[in-house]
Amino acid sequence: MTHRNLTEATWRETRAAAGDAIAVLPIGSQEQHAGHLPMGTDTMLADAVVGRALDLLAEEAGPDTPVPDLVRLPTLPYGHSPHHLFAAALTLSAPVLGTVLDELLDSLAECGYGRVLVVNGHGGNDEIVRLAVKRFALRAEVTAAACSYWTLLDTVETEEATVETEEATVEDAAGAASNWSDAAVAPCGAGDRAGLVPGHAGWFETSLMLAAHPELVRAERPAQPPVEPPPLFDKPPYPGLTVERHGEWERVGGATDDAAGADARDGARLLDRCARGLARALLAFDAATRPTA
Amino acid sequence: MTHRNLTEATWRETRAAAGDAIAVLPIGSQEQHAGHLPMGTDTMLADAVVGRALDLLAEEAGPDTPVPDLVRLPTLPYGHSPHHLFAAALTLSAPVLGTVLDELLDSLAECGYGRVLVVNGHGGNDEIVRLAVKRFALRAEVTAAACSYWTLLDTVETEEATVETEEATVEDAAGAASNWSDAAVAPCGAGDRAGLVPGHAGWFETSLMLAAHPELVRAERPAQPPVEPPPLFDKPPYPGLTVERHGEWERVGGATDDAAGADARDGARLLDRCARGLARALLAFDAATRPTA
Amino acid sequence: MTHRNLTEATWRETRAAAGDAIAVLPIGSQEQHAGHLPMGTDTMLADAVVGRALDLLAEEAGPDTPVPDLVRLPTLPYGHSPHHLFAAALTLSAPVLGTVLDELLDSLAECGYGRVLVVNGHGGNDEIVRLAVKRFALRAEVTAAACSYWTLLDTVETEEATVETEEATVEDAAGAASNWSDAAVAPCGAGDRAGLVPGHAGWFETSLMLAAHPELVRAERPAQPPVEPPPLFDKPPYPGLTVERHGEWERVGGATDDAAGADARDGARLLDRCARGLARALLAFDAATRPTA
Amino acid sequence: MTHRNLTEATWRETRAAAGDAIAVLPIGSQEQHAGHLPMGTDTMLADAVVGRALDLLAEEAGPDTPVPDLVRLPTLPYGHSPHHLFAAALTLSAPVLGTVLDELLDSLAECGYGRVLVVNGHGGNDEIVRLAVKRFALRAEVTAAACSYWTLLDTVETEEATVETEEATVEDAAGAASNWSDAAVAPCGAGDRAGLVPGHAGWFETSLMLAAHPELVRAERPAQPPVEPPPLFDKPPYPGLTVERHGEWERVGGATDDAAGADARDGARLLDRCARGLARALLAFDAATRPTA
Amino acid sequence: MTHRNLTEATWRETRAAAGDAIAVLPIGSQEQHAGHLPMGTDTMLADAVVGRALDLLAEEAGPDTPVPDLVRLPTLPYGHSPHHLFAAALTLSAPVLGTVLDELLDSLAECGYGRVLVVNGHGGNDEIVRLAVKRFALRAEVTAAACSYWTLLDTVETEEATVETEEATVEDAAGAASNWSDAAVAPCGAGDRAGLVPGHAGWFETSLMLAAHPELVRAERPAQPPVEPPPLFDKPPYPGLTVERHGEWERVGGATDDAAGADARDGARLLDRCARGLARALLAFDAATRPTA
Amino acid sequence: MTHRNLTEATWRETRAAAGDAIAVLPIGSQEQHAGHLPMGTDTMLADAVVGRALDLLAEEAGPDTPVPDLVRLPTLPYGHSPHHLFAAALTLSAPVLGTVLDELLDSLAECGYGRVLVVNGHGGNDEIVRLAVKRFALRAEVTAAACSYWTLLDTVETEEATVETEEATVEDAAGAASNWSDAAVAPCGAGDRAGLVPGHAGWFETSLMLAAHPELVRAERPAQPPVEPPPLFDKPPYPGLTVERHGEWERVGGATDDAAGADARDGARLLDRCARGLARALLAFDAATRPTA
Repeated sequence: MTHRNLTEATWRETRAAAGDAIAVLPIGSQEQHAGHLPMGTDTMLADAVVGRALDLLAEEAGPDTPVPDLVRLPTLPYGHSPHHLFAAALTLSAPVLGTVLDELLDSLAECGYGRVLVVNGHGGNDEIVRLAVKRFALRAEVTAAACSYWTLLDTVETEEATVETEEATVEDAAGAASNWSDAAVAPCGAGDRAGLVPGHAGWFETSLMLAAHPELVRAERPAQPPVEPPPLFDKPPYPGLTVERHGEWERVGGATDDAAGADARDGARLLDRCARGLARALLAFDAATRPTA
Repeated sequence: MTHRNLTEATWRETRAAAGDAIAVLPIGSQEQHAGHLPMGTDTMLADAVVGRALDLLAEEAGPDTPVPDLVRLPTLPYGHSPHHLFAAALTLSAPVLGTVLDELLDSLAECGYGRVLVVNGHGGNDEIVRLAVKRFALRAEVTAAACSYWTLLDTVETEEATVETEEATVEDAAGAASNWSDAAVAPCGAGDRAGLVPGHAGWFETSLMLAAHPELVRAERPAQPPVEPPPLFDKPPYPGLTVERHGEWERVGGATDDAAGADARDGARLLDRCARGLARALLAFDAATRPTA
Repeated sequence: MTHRNLTEATWRETRAAAGDAIAVLPIGSQEQHAGHLPMGTDTMLADAVVGRALDLLAEEAGPDTPVPDLVRLPTLPYGHSPHHLFAAALTLSAPVLGTVLDELLDSLAECGYGRVLVVNGHGGNDEIVRLAVKRFALRAEVTAAACSYWTLLDTVETEEATVETEEATVEDAAGAASNWSDAAVAPCGAGDRAGLVPGHAGWFETSLMLAAHPELVRAERPAQPPVEPPPLFDKPPYPGLTVERHGEWERVGGATDDAAGADARDGARLLDRCARGLARALLAFDAATRPTA
Repeated sequence: MTHRNLTEATWRETRAAAGDAIAVLPIGSQEQHAGHLPMGTDTMLADAVVGRALDLLAEEAGPDTPVPDLVRLPTLPYGHSPHHLFAAALTLSAPVLGTVLDELLDSLAECGYGRVLVVNGHGGNDEIVRLAVKRFALRAEVTAAACSYWTLLDTVETEEATVETEEATVEDAAGAASNWSDAAVAPCGAGDRAGLVPGHAGWFETSLMLAAHPELVRAERPAQPPVEPPPLFDKPPYPGLTVERHGEWERVGGATDDAAGADARDGARLLDRCARGLARALLAFDAATRPTA
Repeated sequence: MTHRNLTEATWRETRAAAGDAIAVLPIGSQEQHAGHLPMGTDTMLADAVVGRALDLLAEEAGPDTPVPDLVRLPTLPYGHSPHHLFAAALTLSAPVLGTVLDELLDSLAECGYGRVLVVNGHGGNDEIVRLAVKRFALRAEVTAAACSYWTLLDTVETEEATVETEEATVEDAAGAASNWSDAAVAPCGAGDRAGLVPGHAGWFETSLMLAAHPELVRAERPAQPPVEPPPLFDKPPYPGLTVERHGEWERVGGATDDAAGADARDGARLLDRCARGLARALLAFDAATRPTA
Repeated sequence: MTHRNLTEATWRETRAAAGDAIAVLPIGSQEQHAGHLPMGTDTMLADAVVGRALDLLAEEAGPDTPVPDLVRLPTLPYGHSPHHLFAAALTLSAPVLGTVLDELLDSLAECGYGRVLVVNGHGGNDEIVRLAVKRFALRAEVTAAACSYWTLLDTVETEEATVETEEATVEDAAGAASNWSDAAVAPCGAGDRAGLVPGHAGWFETSLMLAAHPELVRAERPAQPPVEPPPLFDKPPYPGLTVERHGEWERVGGATDDAAGADARDGARLLDRCARGLARALLAFDAATRPTA
């Protein structure tokens, strides 16, 4: 076995895998993504990145590195999106989502799992999934990890410097792209990657969706002129501050930057880089935590 | 529009549908289903019944009845399964699952939805989803409904008396089938339908899975000889009692009855009957609650 | 000892009984029961059925069956009645009532009790008490059961076919009686018992109160003409659906059917049948779960 | 109307009384009371005091004072008794009991009640009921009060100085009686009343039960020699301290003082004094809070 | 070591002290204290009393009594003050404050502490801290105590009868001082101490602040004429009742009595008496609970 | 006014400041900081940074920028430190700390405050404070911000490039310093600042404490040789992952890196840079959110 979907496994298979495998739990959201992207964008992108990462795992491992067994859990399609209720969202409160994660993780421990990775697709879930895995490792004898898929992107790029040339142009096109909007953690971009910051329903997510689910991206992407001042949650007045202003999402129309320049080819490349990052993170996590025989 | 998946809709489409459409939320579980069925059986069957019901909606409505707009929510793949942790389960506690439903339903109300139906695929969720819709309709100006998919089966059968002949044989074959095991509500079977009671990982669910996902049913179905005494949760000592005994699920090996006689053709017929029941329930619900223009 | 009230027992007697006895916890409600029945109707009827069942226990057991020891707990006089607040009710929310039951049941387990039966008198509590006993048996090494008193009625009747003749007439008189309104579980009536479905503050409960507490039934029973359409919670548009519509209880005036035909003699017979059903359920529960010496 | 039991009132009567009446909620406990008193002692005594106070109300008011309308709620028979679980108790945790009170009080406010008095019979509930009424009056436009029945005793005695002579002897007999044990609030005794402090399952409660329910007091009262050191919860090392030591209740055998000298005649007098105190408290509360016409 | 601040100790020192030392946790509030006292009055006074008590400990112990080791925890500067929100307060709800105390106390037990004293400076916290230490001693093998600093005052005075002469005058000056307003527990004053009852932002607290933090007492103390009727929470209509009326704090202007007569010398004496009482309470608590070698 | 401590302000001053001022809430922890630093290190450093930032505010603003009014709340001395319980900690669980923040922030909103900044001194609180301010701004019409003090350091340094020369040496000395250990957010260091990452009880915090509270730093700093492998929480196997392994803190001895090279002069410079960063952040926050006249 390389990987398996828990929903399709019998309980004996589920138990048998527990000792060695890494359980992978994707989580997304259902929330407004401007006029042209579907409610489930974050869920679909988390799924797409995880799926592609699993495909890349053996390739990334290379011939000499063992590929860890993975058990993929059903994606949690609902997240913490109260800031999108002004338009439309199905949201769990932070304490409830935290408790949902607690109970699912405890169930895994009770099944014998010792290694878990939560892969998040929605910025609003970021702190919640990180807190959850920390709590989990204190309660149970496990090693637990969490990430938001976009935070794995940079490193990959660094190592792919040879294909950067073309990309630079892409990034120029996305020059107006805002900072990560919905995410709690600003990426440590430097140099020419500075423009590669994701946003909500803007260039980044639209490009990814054009690659992953083009049929779900509405043709008429509304021109979204930059709003002034830019939203505080996206561009805090000082780096390191998390700032939230009442009504800010509504004021700026629900997106962080203009999706006009989004492009399927850019999206495919971004998707690949996120997935490759996740594959490498899985391999590194496995190497650091593999149970000794 | 007849129906639409919320996860694929934009927020404006989500909002636009809210006034008239019925929001449909399927819910399942991840839990042991004996040695031959997958963990996600209940989730997959809820999805299969809902999917087939939507297909049948226009046919069941007939030419003169309007077909209601439906917005299908992402299926909640996790349910309340603490009684299956002895083998393997990913479970939410009853209060947490209840609160998850509260928050998703409140989100729907905030989006403008006035009509919701929760379709449940796991007996352990039954009381929880019914309580949730009752609470919801007290909090918000909505009409909310809940069902477990198998409770809709009987009525349909009654109206299909002409095809009963062949089925009677099938039911004979399933003569040893236990009562509904995982469900809180015993069906009011009478006459020749007495044998048609579902169970957990036994004849009923195995037949359905052979129809819906045959590739996921393991070939070697372990012979499950009837245990004595039969489990109290499945056959209470007196009708009307809900009885739970500590360790009972483990004692009886995790299934309520022998899956040996399960059959794909029976499963297809059962699936169709459940789906048809759900389709009719949707039409009846629509007729009783349609907003006046 | 046959049975004893815990409130009157010393702690040593309470402990001494724990090993063998069945603890019985009645629960009711305080809520509007139309213009002619008192707020505590459900509590009083649960008490009346339990009291009469204890009286009948030896008779129902017969000479050869041992009569189990019973410890009757103080009746919980408050239940889950938010749907009656529009008129008047003292209500606990579902999570709080569930937790109250959890804590009382845990206390029993800590006292050494291994067998518990919750007897419910209010439809709105039904799912809550059933969930509570299921949770309890997972936490503790006990066998726990729950019922709503009216669900035990049918079987008894079946076995009393010889006295059915007269009753048939009574049931005709109650032909207009609605379905069980406040209860989650529709009884599996068949044949001539079809009319014997209870309701809220209608023929069923009024008859019972005329038998149990005639002095508390107001003389001027307001004529309650059938409302159109009938309440969705009482007559769901499709069998198997639980449906709740905002404001429905207020719309239909707080009762499910006309109490005009209620009669003390019918009530006495119904009370006897419910109590006899409960006595038999207790004996069957005892037989199935008696600790081996 | 002078007073009425809510459980026997129709909802219209319940509502009609709300504007002027004081709702009275008694609360007790189910817990060990040594070898000679029943589990429900505190509940029965709260009921006895309330019942007698209602009887005395007109007499205490005198001809010129209006007697307030009272609506007596069903007694809550369960309280907060975790410290008695070592022997036997049915207990609610403090947060749950607090929430139960919150929800019942909110229900009263929704029915239109503006004045409520909680009468407590169990020391362990004391802080909980006082906190609950304070919270309630902040949430709702009401005046809410709480007391433990024994805290009302002193004042009455003062005013009955003429009958003190005989009692002094009684008090001498009770000279060894401990301080209030289970209560959070030490009475402000002075002079010859110093001996009249209640305790748990000792002279005070046993005397009251001999008066109120003599048939429930076991004949063989176990001699309870004073334990050394006396329990910290009953005799804190410094006045004003609340002290609880793990295992202390078990160490001292579950009672605070020797019940040997308990006497029915003393009990009758104490009961009368508590009831008279409650009657006067009700009249004073009414006078201070009566709605202006 | 006599005493040490936990915040300044290393973890090894913290652990090393746990076996013998008494952990002391002061708690206050941030809430309106009329126009002349600061929001943190209760916090500062709790700190002042604890600080002075620690200074007096050796003197109070005398040469022959061992002085217990004390570990002073950081003062919790926030309390339960919802009744002061009408003006200004930073408040925790009662359940949350209770849980905060639970978690801090559990942390102490996990560090090995077996003896804890909570010293409270705000009447609204009184029941909450008492309940918390009771719960704690049931969960863990500890002896836990709680007090509000002013409840320790009386006894000291009794034993200082020789210096009473001058004080009597002071008390006369405070003759109009109200009863304890914000506290749940009325002090058992008798004789000439009857006037020494504290209040909120009146003579008592203003005098103490003039002694402890004179620079924070505003010069222009608003004349606060007595309001009629006096606030029910301060002067309940009958002793032993806890009464809260909606809007009462706002009606009476936020203070219980006139601060005009407050005096720094009186304050110094009161502060000393409270501190001396706390010192003696600590010594008595230590003597009663000292671990045997 | 420039700034004021809420605990010393009267309620009228508190209210009067609410419209314009920024409320600043520092939060720390009480937890093991290896053998040489005190339990309250995080609390003291948060206080030190805030205190110094307020001192620098006018200087940083310069002559032409208005200095915002600030109201400093009492520091919350307890945080979320379950990972330090293995040694010694006083910890609040994440949900409880989150609710404490919710209630304090709601109190501020009720007082009229529209702008709040939480300044955190403990890595384990980071996600909790960020989530809290986001929730707050959705509930109330406010702008709320949160930061951990060390995240504000980098930018300042950038602007102080002229004094970097000397510092480079310092950083070399700290070459072995680990990454931010206790913090969720890795700083985006680049170039020569790469070594300036904080840790727990290592070079960074020890240097700061040597500057802020030298008397509390124990002389005998235990040599802490680098552990292999380094702790996963401090050096995740892949950047972007949050990883927690059961028992990891205990395995590595409670500190992330060797404190041997810590130095008071470095500490003073770091403290100044953090404070200057906070001062600039406050000015920028003020500029971006100042209410229009």
